[in-house]
Amino acid sequence: MEGIPEVMKMAEIIVPVLTPFNDGKINIELLKEHTSSLLKAGVDRIFVNGTTGMGPALSPGEKETNLKAVLEVTDKVIFQVGSLNMGEVKSLAREGKELGVKTIASYAPYYFTGLPKSLIVRYFKEICGEHDEVYLYNYPSAVGKDVDAETVKEIGCLKGVKDTNDSINHSLQYKRVNPGMKVFNGADTLVMTSIATGLDGTVSAAANFVPEVLVEIRRKVSEGKVGEAMKLQFMVDELVSLAKGYGYIPSIYVLVKGIRGYDVGNPRPPLFPLGDVERKELLDKAIKIMEKYNKNEA
Amino acid sequence: MEGIPEVMKMAEIIVPVLTPFNDGKINIELLKEHTSSLLKAGVDRIFVNGTTGMGPALSPGEKETNLKAVLEVTDKVIFQVGSLNMGEVKSLAREGKELGVKTIASYAPYYFTGLPKSLIVRYFKEICGEHDEVYLYNYPSAVGKDVDAETVKEIGCLKGVKDTNDSINHSLQYKRVNPGMKVFNGADTLVMTSIATGLDGTVSAAANFVPEVLVEIRRKVSEGKVGEAMKLQFMVDELVSLAKGYGYIPSIYVLVKGIRGYDVGNPRPPLFPLGDVERKELLDKAIKIMEKYNKNEA
Amino acid sequence: MEGIPEVMKMAEIIVPVLTPFNDGKINIELLKEHTSSLLKAGVDRIFVNGTTGMGPALSPGEKETNLKAVLEVTDKVIFQVGSLNMGEVKSLAREGKELGVKTIASYAPYYFTGLPKSLIVRYFKEICGEHDEVYLYNYPSAVGKDVDAETVKEIGCLKGVKDTNDSINHSLQYKRVNPGMKVFNGADTLVMTSIATGLDGTVSAAANFVPEVLVEIRRKVSEGKVGEAMKLQFMVDELVSLAKGYGYIPSIYVLVKGIRGYDVGNPRPPLFPLGDVERKELLDKAIKIMEKYNKNEA
Amino acid sequence: MEGIPEVMKMAEIIVPVLTPFNDGKINIELLKEHTSSLLKAGVDRIFVNGTTGMGPALSPGEKETNLKAVLEVTDKVIFQVGSLNMGEVKSLAREGKELGVKTIASYAPYYFTGLPKSLIVRYFKEICGEHDEVYLYNYPSAVGKDVDAETVKEIGCLKGVKDTNDSINHSLQYKRVNPGMKVFNGADTLVMTSIATGLDGTVSAAANFVPEVLVEIRRKVSEGKVGEAMKLQFMVDELVSLAKGYGYIPSIYVLVKGIRGYDVGNPRPPLFPLGDVERKELLDKAIKIMEKYNKNEA
Repeated sequence: MEGIPEVMKMAEIIVPVLTPFNDGKINIELLKEHTSSLLKAGVDRIFVNGTTGMGPALSPGEKETNLKAVLEVTDKVIFQVGSLNMGEVKSLAREGKELGVKTIASYAPYYFTGLPKSLIVRYFKEICGEHDEVYLYNYPSAVGKDVDAETVKEIGCLKGVKDTNDSINHSLQYKRVNPGMKVFNGADTLVMTSIATGLDGTVSAAANFVPEVLVEIRRKVSEGKVGEAMKLQFMVDELVSLAKGYGYIPSIYVLVKGIRGYDVGNPRPPLFPLGDVERKELLDKAIKIMEKYNKNEA
Repeated sequence: MEGIPEVMKMAEIIVPVLTPFNDGKINIELLKEHTSSLLKAGVDRIFVNGTTGMGPALSPGEKETNLKAVLEVTDKVIFQVGSLNMGEVKSLAREGKELGVKTIASYAPYYFTGLPKSLIVRYFKEICGEHDEVYLYNYPSAVGKDVDAETVKEIGCLKGVKDTNDSINHSLQYKRVNPGMKVFNGADTLVMTSIATGLDGTVSAAANFVPEVLVEIRRKVSEGKVGEAMKLQFMVDELVSLAKGYGYIPSIYVLVKGIRGYDVGNPRPPLFPLGDVERKELLDKAIKIMEKYNKNEA
Repeated sequence: MEGIPEVMKMAEIIVPVLTPFNDGKINIELLKEHTSSLLKAGVDRIFVNGTTGMGPALSPGEKETNLKAVLEVTDKVIFQVGSLNMGEVKSLAREGKELGVKTIASYAPYYFTGLPKSLIVRYFKEICGEHDEVYLYNYPSAVGKDVDAETVKEIGCLKGVKDTNDSINHSLQYKRVNPGMKVFNGADTLVMTSIATGLDGTVSAAANFVPEVLVEIRRKVSEGKVGEAMKLQFMVDELVSLAKGYGYIPSIYVLVKGIRGYDVGNPRPPLFPLGDVERKELLDKAIKIMEKYNKNEA
Repeated sequence: MEGIPEVMKMAEIIVPVLTPFNDGKINIELLKEHTSSLLKAGVDRIFVNGTTGMGPALSPGEKETNLKAVLEVTDKVIFQVGSLNMGEVKSLAREGKELGVKTIASYAPYYFTGLPKSLIVRYFKEICGEHDEVYLYNYPSAVGKDVDAETVKEIGCLKGVKDTNDSINHSLQYKRVNPGMKVFNGADTLVMTSIATGLDGTVSAAANFVPEVLVEIRRKVSEGKVGEAMKLQFMVDELVSLAKGYGYIPSIYVLVKGIRGYDVGNPRPPLFPLGDVERKELLDKAIKIMEKYNKNEA
């Protein structure tokens, strides 16, 4: 066992779980079943109300509904509470604490550009006032602002970060500037790299439809088989790239059903569900990608 | 009067009106008073629930509250109804129609990146299904996607656009590709240019605190006095640049009170109101800017 | 004649003249003929060794060759001298002075990213040490850095600027911060706007192939006929957009020959000349665009 | 020795060697001495006329001078031949072949924006016509265009790539789309990640002043000690960040002399050498950074 990198074995695979809708309402049973299935596949924690979960499109009540459903299945939860209404954010944070949720998270206030840094700092400090373990969810390309390593240092109370960022260096800088902090990269294309380069893990939307592949990537890296891990990562890259052509979030619902074999409902408009022709096309292509990689490795 | 450009005289000045909060609730009376004051100053139409009005931070009920308050003062209204919940968007659009609002508007679904064009097109078509006169509110830097002139052509039912965009060429292209469309640029720094270059007007947040200056810019341009209009625009530029240093939206509340002399309440956190020291500093500097320009022109 | 904007009538139309090559060498006679033709069409000044002139691809000797050729035709010249070798830049500046060139210009050092502002300031100050009238050629998207209004103020010795920039506000800020400075925008799509909004004129590559149209745009604006000027601008927009699809600079050689009727040689690889099929296709489409707009206005 | 990742042990450390100038002329002896020193420190290959070598600022003759100087010391050379003059590029490529250089490289034509893809493809194909082993030097932020994995596939003849890119995923895609290709990332901040994630190595400007640290990072990664490698990478990050504040390339000359103890001349204006005060300040701070990290690890 000598020579096996210890750090890599501990890397976590966290899933930003989708929110199953039927007729515009959350289907609690489907969410619970999906959560169970992901945990059995080896996923470590469930990130609730993330982007894939359509967090910014949920009402405060819906965010709470999602949390409670997942808590019925597991306590390995990160509860995302962010919104553009501070009162609601704090109320959800308190709710999380009362329900015994170990970790909550929030993105920065989205949409509004040019916010002064002091306002961002204050936003997160107020959340820290309500809960002991708060993670930053940094997602500059969606949120329109970057809460970087230096800003996190200024905030002073954040215990971890999900950094959805093409730049792995950006993620690494959190560890340089804030040594005790847990750092997860959130790009589907950087699962292998995140683990190999010593981050604490990944929060990958692809874990909704290929959780076993991500678990296998982690195993390969921990055994020093980077070349084999890279091939699995490339399969994920191709699946994600394919799905993005149809709209990533709506496609995930189709891929979960098609690959994992159970229903997870639909997204909610304006994230319109795919039409029948698109569903079939997406799934056919996805299966071809998976077959191609499986043959190569045989 | 020969030689006076006809087009310019008709250019509209539209104000994206702020939303006055007290203790986290909309203060309807303050909104009505502010609306009246702006109309008296020469503003042509009121854009309700825009970015300055904190539209994305409002609940559906609050958006309706704002609309009804403004309708008590005037019917020259553009009612912004966009959100990340299609059902709520359509419901607000219907509400607008029932209340006799002539024009509604919507931004594209914000936050979610990489949405396919077909989804954007469908979003706006569904809104057009509910109302006769729908404007696009295009704001790429906040929304994360650009609904450009070609996409508008594909949507096919939009009657106007507020294009919040540093590129005046981007705004002009709507007119090239969609000849009958009303086109307004939404950048405070381009009021003079928008009018001089033949757009249908401007939707400028600065109209909240210096509406008379914008009206005067329009007059100067219509008289061919571009040099004088440019100086007024430069004064606006300096005020806006100053305000952005403190956070633009929170600063607007301070500037309305300080310059126009009446209370408009506060923004709502996480758009935290300015502290007392900041308020004083902002206002002192704003007054110095205005004095500097007034002296120059004396 | 009352009401005609005085400022607009003085707006200059400057052409960044192409460099005619045959077999990789500058064809001096073709350059002189093209220059003469442009001046007859109403262009005010010739910008030598600009981007369209392939300035960054020319040796110091070739830059001098271009200058001398144009000087045989006119003294209305702006001599661009910039490069990544300070000694050569200064030598060319001196050469320009000795030859009686009234105005020289330079872009900032291109390619190298992250240069400190002090270095940029020093670069231009050293050029000012060699010549009395130095213009900045600001072109952020090609040069990779923005020499903005505040930096120009710090440099302190620049008399004008060609700002190749989609943001007309960026160009206007030079006038706000440096009141005596001549400001020209360099975007083909902003000819009409530049004149209407009170800049000192335009430096437009399209002046190589449709100089009369730009002159007509200026006339229309000066007469307050902004709507008619806008249509002419839209024709230019469509021609430029078409040409960019084939590579803009190589296309300009084809359009000059096809529209103006005389040979201007070829660009030099790696700006490869268009093939015969592409030439025909480009020209056919260009003529259709021009016919469409001419009919509309008949 | 089981479990040690084989791939990582082979990762190459390539140095884009600086060009020592005195009075604006290349100092051949200093270049040879620096090259020897870097090879002794464990660097694998010398990248000549790269960005750090001020390639775009060199005449064709100077590029050849640099090559010949380095060839006197070693044949482990990558000869960068790119410029905006195709004839000169091809001539240098031939020269490299005649001199027995195994590998040449080129960036895409810089400065000119909006070049059609076909032109980029042809540029590299013409280079491949002159030499057997051609690498792409991809540097989008300096060159203004991205020659990505799909474009490389279309070019068809490139054997390797130096990808100067914050996105390690971008580098990895070359391997996915072009399986046989050698792929090196060129960001100083991604040395550890490049090796850990299975690329063929790194081309790092920091190898000019801390080559032993990069060699040590490689060793740590190959032993599975990612955490220790990360600390060394963070030291490099801080040094590079410090140096960039003074202008990166000019600072490298100071750091080589200060850290490695021998003279490498100066950069050439407009990359002006640092003044005495700046030199001292930079060096003092650099030494403090190195001491801080050395203590931590003691």
